[in-house]
Amino acid sequence: MSSAPVPSGTESAALFLKRIESSRVFQWCVIFIIILSAVSIGAKTYDLPQLAQQILPLLDNSITYFFLAEIVLRFLVCEDKKRFLRDGWNRFDTIVVSGSLVPVENAEAVLIGRLLRVFRVLRLVSVVPELRSLINALLKAIPRMGYIALLMFIIFYIYGAIGSLFFSPIDEGLWGDVSVAMLTLFRVATFEDWTDVMYATMEVHPLSWVFYLSFIFLMAFVFLNMMVGVILEVMTEEHNRETAKQAHQEREELAEQITHMQKQIDEMHAMMQSTRSG
Amino acid sequence: MSSAPVPSGTESAALFLKRIESSRVFQWCVIFIIILSAVSIGAKTYDLPQLAQQILPLLDNSITYFFLAEIVLRFLVCEDKKRFLRDGWNRFDTIVVSGSLVPVENAEAVLIGRLLRVFRVLRLVSVVPELRSLINALLKAIPRMGYIALLMFIIFYIYGAIGSLFFSPIDEGLWGDVSVAMLTLFRVATFEDWTDVMYATMEVHPLSWVFYLSFIFLMAFVFLNMMVGVILEVMTEEHNRETAKQAHQEREELAEQITHMQKQIDEMHAMMQSTRSG
Amino acid sequence: MSSAPVPSGTESAALFLKRIESSRVFQWCVIFIIILSAVSIGAKTYDLPQLAQQILPLLDNSITYFFLAEIVLRFLVCEDKKRFLRDGWNRFDTIVVSGSLVPVENAEAVLIGRLLRVFRVLRLVSVVPELRSLINALLKAIPRMGYIALLMFIIFYIYGAIGSLFFSPIDEGLWGDVSVAMLTLFRVATFEDWTDVMYATMEVHPLSWVFYLSFIFLMAFVFLNMMVGVILEVMTEEHNRETAKQAHQEREELAEQITHMQKQIDEMHAMMQSTRSG
Amino acid sequence: MSSAPVPSGTESAALFLKRIESSRVFQWCVIFIIILSAVSIGAKTYDLPQLAQQILPLLDNSITYFFLAEIVLRFLVCEDKKRFLRDGWNRFDTIVVSGSLVPVENAEAVLIGRLLRVFRVLRLVSVVPELRSLINALLKAIPRMGYIALLMFIIFYIYGAIGSLFFSPIDEGLWGDVSVAMLTLFRVATFEDWTDVMYATMEVHPLSWVFYLSFIFLMAFVFLNMMVGVILEVMTEEHNRETAKQAHQEREELAEQITHMQKQIDEMHAMMQSTRSG
Repeated sequence: MSSAPVPSGTESAALFLKRIESSRVFQWCVIFIIILSAVSIGAKTYDLPQLAQQILPLLDNSITYFFLAEIVLRFLVCEDKKRFLRDGWNRFDTIVVSGSLVPVENAEAVLIGRLLRVFRVLRLVSVVPELRSLINALLKAIPRMGYIALLMFIIFYIYGAIGSLFFSPIDEGLWGDVSVAMLTLFRVATFEDWTDVMYATMEVHPLSWVFYLSFIFLMAFVFLNMMVGVILEVMTEEHNRETAKQAHQEREELAEQITHMQKQIDEMHAMMQSTRSG
Repeated sequence: MSSAPVPSGTESAALFLKRIESSRVFQWCVIFIIILSAVSIGAKTYDLPQLAQQILPLLDNSITYFFLAEIVLRFLVCEDKKRFLRDGWNRFDTIVVSGSLVPVENAEAVLIGRLLRVFRVLRLVSVVPELRSLINALLKAIPRMGYIALLMFIIFYIYGAIGSLFFSPIDEGLWGDVSVAMLTLFRVATFEDWTDVMYATMEVHPLSWVFYLSFIFLMAFVFLNMMVGVILEVMTEEHNRETAKQAHQEREELAEQITHMQKQIDEMHAMMQSTRSG
Repeated sequence: MSSAPVPSGTESAALFLKRIESSRVFQWCVIFIIILSAVSIGAKTYDLPQLAQQILPLLDNSITYFFLAEIVLRFLVCEDKKRFLRDGWNRFDTIVVSGSLVPVENAEAVLIGRLLRVFRVLRLVSVVPELRSLINALLKAIPRMGYIALLMFIIFYIYGAIGSLFFSPIDEGLWGDVSVAMLTLFRVATFEDWTDVMYATMEVHPLSWVFYLSFIFLMAFVFLNMMVGVILEVMTEEHNRETAKQAHQEREELAEQITHMQKQIDEMHAMMQSTRSG
Repeated sequence: MSSAPVPSGTESAALFLKRIESSRVFQWCVIFIIILSAVSIGAKTYDLPQLAQQILPLLDNSITYFFLAEIVLRFLVCEDKKRFLRDGWNRFDTIVVSGSLVPVENAEAVLIGRLLRVFRVLRLVSVVPELRSLINALLKAIPRMGYIALLMFIIFYIYGAIGSLFFSPIDEGLWGDVSVAMLTLFRVATFEDWTDVMYATMEVHPLSWVFYLSFIFLMAFVFLNMMVGVILEVMTEEHNRETAKQAHQEREELAEQITHMQKQIDEMHAMMQSTRSG
């Protein structure tokens, strides 16, 4: 837009590419192609007429080549090539797109190829900045929950071991080994037909309701505390940042004013002292 | 209530209408008629005696004409006709009431006519100011959730596509195509008999519990973060407004006092300097 | 405990009663009797040996007379009789206890009599001050939720009317009339076998999932906003009270100090001015 | 690591033990053994090959002796033996480990022995400091919920008594006595097939939906208020501590500056006064 100096041959090509890459039209075009790709993935799950079945693979290939071209373009335009490669989103894009390029032959590979195509929908996240920052915020929230998740896993494991110790003769499918028992406990934690599970074991061990109720209360209690913890942590963080900034600014002005007075009083003090001694 | 100047003919009619429209009796009357309309809609779903079945249509028509009269009155009384038409609640009222006026002949239209009559209950919201402001507050909260909702949709879509890719041969009714699969996933997200769905697919793909558990954890995680986000956003907004106002006021007083001191010290400083040099 | 003046005859009796009523032993005794009453109510639901069945009615009567004596004692001791009668907890106690005194003859009255005895457990709330203040806090939270509850009822009513309009031919038991339909909707809102309800109607109206999903989202959205609203309201209330007090105090000290300086500077200013003019 | 004075015989042994106990290698070793113990407990629930079944008991005994050695080491190294014994985590460790040492003979004792071995997984919590502080935080949150839990129990008990009073002839298994009825109510509170329970009683008592809905609303209301209460309490606590500290510090600086000015002004005031009077 600003009158740039006339560039030489290769430079003008680079500028041209850059202008394309940063143009709004191109970005909307990428978003449109991603949505088209998502629709084509969804469309394949329906029974389609003959014509559509012939067009879809063509469309699919075109989309793959478009994505390839887009990534190459973005790479060429990017000035700091190393940073481009280090960025997680770019890596994700490259893997997903290059995965679609690998020719598939046997049936299993077809399934994996289709799976990779499904993940192309996630490119929407990598292209729309708002979704990107949302995901980054979510990723930042994970470590906060780390130790709580470990604690929950320990509780699950202990209850799973106890459950499979006592209840495995009652229902091999639900309490057969510790991993199956943990899946059953997750089912209990989601309240999904948990009374059926409990009533079955209560017929053999009448006190086994203690096992279920203590588990549910423990889970609810830990979960509630986790939620409160997360809300609190984010809040105080946010709050401190917000109010600290605001309060700091107002206080800064006061402090400046007082410092100014201080200086003048210092001077007056010195003057009076000198007057006196003089 | 105040002694108004004696109006001319047309003016006095307008004043009379205005006095009716803004009277408490009229407003309670409108609320009563809306509740009556709601009751009559509910009553139709019961098996009624002959007499009631003859009275109900008459009552229905009376209510329609009353609503029509009320809207016309509100329109006539309103001084800024354009603003009246631009207001969403007035448009809603007009559509609902005028919809009841269209004569219906075939069976399908009867159903739509009855549906429109059901929406007349929503007029309660447009008439009671507290409900109106509550709805406005809820509508204001929607954009906040926009990108989170988009992200959730993307997650649903990807899991739906994967689910229909792998599980459609197992249960056509649950995983047949991507839209049916998303409905099934919504069912899983509400924990409604989700283990039945899981156990069925685990018989073919023993590792498919990863699909369900990762989906549930992802949903719970995103939902939790959404909740925390909304609470936070509303809170800091509210909080900043509240405390900023309060703190600002108290600080203002301090600042004023200090500024006053500043001035006097400035004067003293100047005087002493002049005394010295003098 | 302090050396009181020697009272006359009637006075000493009043003092004696007051001393009993306010003694810790008596209060713990009342709590013990209430718990005994609760246990006896629970015991009756079991198959008991002959002996216990003969003792329980005696115990029951003794408890009733003890409660009666306790209320009379509290009434006699209370200095402001009117206030005693106006207090909701005292009224509640009186009704529950006097209800147990009415002689029962026919079978129906026996059931009501036993029901009244169950409510004697609630006397625990009226006796333990912590539970009392908890209940008062809960009661105070109700009006906050008033309009949200009204809005929820309107949504339930509209969906109930629509549901019974479209689905009553499909399942009379679930959608027969508007009240049954609202009960079914409450079931859907608790996610209890809601897909069974949905699948049944989707066979006739394939698009009826829109009805259920919109209802669930609306409910979740309104509920979430209600929760956020309540948290916010209580929080800002609490927060303002807390920090305002604290900040005010610290600021007060600063302000005082500055005011003191102000005075001295004022004096100096005046002195210098007088020196100059002098 | 610092050049310590050359110790005598017993001292050097103590120092050597202390160096072991506080070394990172030893701590990671303990964590590894605990995880190994957890894995061996889980492994026993699977059908294992002959070889593994012979190795597992040996591994089990080795782990027990390792844990015993570790506790003895920690006890020997600890300088304040009394404090060691008073610490809850040490007691827990001692009980769990010594429990594994008791020789078991009959079948029942075997089950209890295996149960004790399961609790060895909890030693992970006692060893990892982050988990320890998390558990301490959770334990601290319990009393906060004390009275709410009591209130909930009272509500459960009353509804249980009423339920078993009215519904025990309908379904002995669900409403037979007050404890079974409370278990059924807990099931209703988790929304687990609660409509089946309700529909069964509604056939005899058509108005019994009032019982269920009032119970659900009461539970949801009390639970919501409990959650809000806990969030609030933790928040204001945290918030006060955080902001108070921060605000205090900044204010302290201002106050110091003002106090300094104060002193100088006091001096000036005194000087002027003396000049005047002089």
